[in-house]
Amino acid sequence: MFSPSSRPSLASDAPIGIFDSGIGGLTVAHAMAQAMPGESLLYFGDTAHMPYGDRSPELVRTYSVRIAQYLREEGCKAIVIACNSASAAATDAVREVAGEDIPVMDVVQPVVEYLAERGVARVGVIGTRATVGSGIYGRSLAEARARREGDAASLHPTVEWPTPLLAPLIEEGWHDHALMEPVIASYLTAAGWLGDGMGAIDALVLGCTHYPLADEVFRRVVGPHVELVDGPGIVAKAVSKALDSRGLRRSDSLPRHQFLVSDLTENFKRSAERFFGEEIPLQPGGPWFKG
Amino acid sequence: MFSPSSRPSLASDAPIGIFDSGIGGLTVAHAMAQAMPGESLLYFGDTAHMPYGDRSPELVRTYSVRIAQYLREEGCKAIVIACNSASAAATDAVREVAGEDIPVMDVVQPVVEYLAERGVARVGVIGTRATVGSGIYGRSLAEARARREGDAASLHPTVEWPTPLLAPLIEEGWHDHALMEPVIASYLTAAGWLGDGMGAIDALVLGCTHYPLADEVFRRVVGPHVELVDGPGIVAKAVSKALDSRGLRRSDSLPRHQFLVSDLTENFKRSAERFFGEEIPLQPGGPWFKG
Repeated sequence: MFSPSSRPSLASDAPIGIFDSGIGGLTVAHAMAQAMPGESLLYFGDTAHMPYGDRSPELVRTYSVRIAQYLREEGCKAIVIACNSASAAATDAVREVAGEDIPVMDVVQPVVEYLAERGVARVGVIGTRATVGSGIYGRSLAEARARREGDAASLHPTVEWPTPLLAPLIEEGWHDHALMEPVIASYLTAAGWLGDGMGAIDALVLGCTHYPLADEVFRRVVGPHVELVDGPGIVAKAVSKALDSRGLRRSDSLPRHQFLVSDLTENFKRSAERFFGEEIPLQPGGPWFKG
Repeated sequence: MFSPSSRPSLASDAPIGIFDSGIGGLTVAHAMAQAMPGESLLYFGDTAHMPYGDRSPELVRTYSVRIAQYLREEGCKAIVIACNSASAAATDAVREVAGEDIPVMDVVQPVVEYLAERGVARVGVIGTRATVGSGIYGRSLAEARARREGDAASLHPTVEWPTPLLAPLIEEGWHDHALMEPVIASYLTAAGWLGDGMGAIDALVLGCTHYPLADEVFRRVVGPHVELVDGPGIVAKAVSKALDSRGLRRSDSLPRHQFLVSDLTENFKRSAERFFGEEIPLQPGGPWFKG
């Protein structure tokens, strides 16, 4: 445990805190473990309150703030919001809790910067109802383009489309089920990107940490000419760079990972391995834990 | 509001309390409003903590007990647990909170009594992971048969099968989507009731308050020889009978309904109408409300 008593006050060997409404954020945690193999991770999945994607922004903010307080108390040197819905609703609130010492990164801004940097013109975003309802990708991308290019910035609006069933389907292990492809096709057709709309977007942002598990199905559905934007990989690189720039990267190589959830069921145990890509010990714990 | 100060101490004109993890229980509330048009209903949907079907039994019990306390404080004359997952995990705990004065009914026992009474032999049950994991239908049905028939009771085991994606699909309004039929068929085939298993069951219990919305699709999938068991209708009749027997039925005809949820989103507002069958005013409220 990274208990407050042993809190290393933001020494580089402190863990990186990372949270999600459930286990989807493990795709981000895994990308981070690969990009920064020496770093310790303290992952918290709020399985008692998931899915954030169907909740009101106020409620997502309440939960996120409580989790950020917890990660701060546990001595984390940085906080990664590994959930698009929480990134949309709660990044500012989490920054306030974290204070100036503890950098806070979300999963939206790195992807937006990546798209702006590469000048991708026509972007489609899919995500939960909470994420899409916030309009965060379109707004942030327009701002990032304006900062980089001024008046020359792309005039293409970013189209955001809610695909609320994809996270439950993937959580159930249906990411490679025969029915996953028609479900995805049904959504992308409704969004105007398939059928008559084929060719309408240059890149598709998988704006939910669950979606990369179904990337092969997405690839089949959208064809070879649409870039699938790899959120977890891009976020992991951005976190690594941010820690580097603050001198917070760990130099030795003895990481200790902790994976905590607010409600532990057999199903979460089974699914966690699928999301992280290898077996991990999920434990009950976190801010609401009275064990 | 049925505030404690105006609490009619279980007079027959007190409301019937009814709760669910979300809006699925509105199918039960609607059946109750139709069966007992003079009764006032106080409905609470715990949308902040839904779906109970994916949670641990302990957590479902914690939430259910808090809600039962609230309904008792609000002066309800009876409590209906309109959620299969909560019925499975928390009926005894809710009874304890309600005390002897306030009858507590769940959505499982009336269906079990109905099946036992009619001597239905081979029963299949579908529901959430929490409901099916509890084994409540099989256990209760075996007990009810033994009470009625003793040694002559049916030896057919009740088969329970988890169909965790159906509730999210129906909540999204996909109950009549073209993909609903293959999803249901996929589950029922895996359960052994379609294809080679056709004819393996005499009745299919839709063991989740969401499922009746898709009853036409179920009918197409299972064919004409399997009885689809109408949970809400059966439960409403059982509640009416239980209130009658205690002299708690209302005699006049000026019902006041309240529909409260712990987290109110636009999507819940839209969906509520679909579940209740007519427009209803959802309001934020209930045990966790600090408005």
